[in-house]
Amino acid sequence: MDRVFNFAAGPAVMPEEALRRAAAEMLNYKGTGMSVMEMSHRSAAYQEIFDHTVARLRQLMDIPADYEVLLLQGGATGQFAAVAMNLLSGFASYVDSGHFAHSAWMEAMKYGDARCIASTREEGYRRVPANDEITVDPSADYLYITTNNTIYGTRIPEIPDTGAVPLVADMSSNILSQPYDVRRFGVVFAGAQKNIGPAGLTVVIVRKDLLGRARKETPNVLNWTVMADKGSMLNTPPTYAIYMAGLCLDWLADQGGVAAIYQRNLQKSALLYDYLDQSRLFHGIADKGCRSLMNVTFRTEDDALDVAFVQEAAANGLCSLKGHRVAGGMRASIYNAMPLEGVQTLVRFMESFEKQHR
Amino acid sequence: MDRVFNFAAGPAVMPEEALRRAAAEMLNYKGTGMSVMEMSHRSAAYQEIFDHTVARLRQLMDIPADYEVLLLQGGATGQFAAVAMNLLSGFASYVDSGHFAHSAWMEAMKYGDARCIASTREEGYRRVPANDEITVDPSADYLYITTNNTIYGTRIPEIPDTGAVPLVADMSSNILSQPYDVRRFGVVFAGAQKNIGPAGLTVVIVRKDLLGRARKETPNVLNWTVMADKGSMLNTPPTYAIYMAGLCLDWLADQGGVAAIYQRNLQKSALLYDYLDQSRLFHGIADKGCRSLMNVTFRTEDDALDVAFVQEAAANGLCSLKGHRVAGGMRASIYNAMPLEGVQTLVRFMESFEKQHR
Repeated sequence: MDRVFNFAAGPAVMPEEALRRAAAEMLNYKGTGMSVMEMSHRSAAYQEIFDHTVARLRQLMDIPADYEVLLLQGGATGQFAAVAMNLLSGFASYVDSGHFAHSAWMEAMKYGDARCIASTREEGYRRVPANDEITVDPSADYLYITTNNTIYGTRIPEIPDTGAVPLVADMSSNILSQPYDVRRFGVVFAGAQKNIGPAGLTVVIVRKDLLGRARKETPNVLNWTVMADKGSMLNTPPTYAIYMAGLCLDWLADQGGVAAIYQRNLQKSALLYDYLDQSRLFHGIADKGCRSLMNVTFRTEDDALDVAFVQEAAANGLCSLKGHRVAGGMRASIYNAMPLEGVQTLVRFMESFEKQHR
Repeated sequence: MDRVFNFAAGPAVMPEEALRRAAAEMLNYKGTGMSVMEMSHRSAAYQEIFDHTVARLRQLMDIPADYEVLLLQGGATGQFAAVAMNLLSGFASYVDSGHFAHSAWMEAMKYGDARCIASTREEGYRRVPANDEITVDPSADYLYITTNNTIYGTRIPEIPDTGAVPLVADMSSNILSQPYDVRRFGVVFAGAQKNIGPAGLTVVIVRKDLLGRARKETPNVLNWTVMADKGSMLNTPPTYAIYMAGLCLDWLADQGGVAAIYQRNLQKSALLYDYLDQSRLFHGIADKGCRSLMNVTFRTEDDALDVAFVQEAAANGLCSLKGHRVAGGMRASIYNAMPLEGVQTLVRFMESFEKQHR
């Protein structure tokens, strides 16, 4: 089979240009005589690659100078612990908008007084808590949100105003998909494997005044202050994943950056949602007011038909459309690197499937 | 420049065959229509890759069934904390044989009573503590060693007998380089970036009866018990690094496995040490009784000449020979993937450099 359209939720589709360049450079990166994978992380050649990735990210997200950019390991799940270990001394407020938000809260409770201040768990996470359901306690160490909920296909439509309370955001599944003003946040973190690059890299963007608060039992690899002091190289970073992220971010810059990709993401997701809203077989799962631009969840009324749809789609080169095991149904993840053509092909396939099965 | 001989200490040289195969499969892995980097870690295609890597490692190291093999993130440095968080409740004994052994001990002290029972720090780590300097306290939670000290070019010549006390070993820089009987150890761990694969993957081999002891504040991503329960997939693993490790381990199996590569490693290191021992310009740094097979440290009597040597060698395609900043001099890391030809070429170059500069 030729290249398919891959709707996986992450690891996920990557820009073909980035993959082609990685393949071409695999044995000999720019005349160095070695693969990037073989380079010492202390070499000048590698430091240049590392710096390039950070600079690209700073440029694309317009990250101010008073924020550190850390390239770490351990995924967002590692940061669920790190957030609390680095910031929690009194109490923290958590908004429970999905499975991973809930996991972050659970993990934080190991380290102190982490309070859930709003939750849509009882509603099956079909929506996120509205901003008027969120009461900001000004004495909280931080307020924690998840900007996009991969599993349920929801997104926070409007970032809440937390005043002086540092806002901490897990942006794993929609970072770089739309413009966010980093200045609104104390900390932004994301696993790379959706819109940044390959799995195994975790980006942490932290306002510098929030450093220096880590509890002494914080493992060094999760300690933002230690890692900031060492330029993310207390130990060997995930060197190749950082290089790949650089190639993917180069591609995003070539597309016109975040503002331009946002327009395309609006177009791509509208194509799917518009189809779903008029379909008499499929319907969207997430509440309309907080639909994700990245993860489109939908289903028929018939579980067996859902299974048949996922299988037939895969046979037609439309892969990984099965919904997450905790949510069921279908999910089309349409990250930045998913071309418009992929979404168009999916909608055409859904139309023909609908004709056949109604 | 064509492919060079890369003597970096890690990330380090990888088998060219593995890199070639990765390049060829980059855009479309075995007809799946996607890169391994793009695969969902929950897909059948990816699970097969993951299982293959684990099976290869089990085969090559002859890992018994009562040991778990975990593929994690965070490097050996992450495990410095994890070892203590997962095992330390009373006290633990540390053998301080080098920079990383010392760091592991420092990190463990955050979590409890970690005691240094033998150290060669005062001797500049030119040797490792001898077994008769190590007194095993039978009530210790574990005894911690580092089998090979990358920076100083030393190796433990004979694994100490710790009786019923679990032996925990950081094998980062010589795992798979010589036969070790896993049954002698409670826990073996290693960052992948020397003899396993790319940076960003950490292998932990843990005897199953040692699971279930983690303190409750252990971050999930460092909790061996949680990770064992989830088949190393509590969260997204470093998928591509695991695939690359599989390719590198396939290569090692093709070479005849650990017993065969050990013979080659003896031959490669002997070539260098024999030359050093008769040279009137260069001399080895590590004590003869505990010389590493993987990292050969040496110097001249003249710092400026050391610098010139490293530069001239690099100009001749013999790269990354500079010693670690804390040790000075030169270091030739000759991991499994360094071909004999690389070492022969290095010795020839050293001979001609010696002629020129004596």
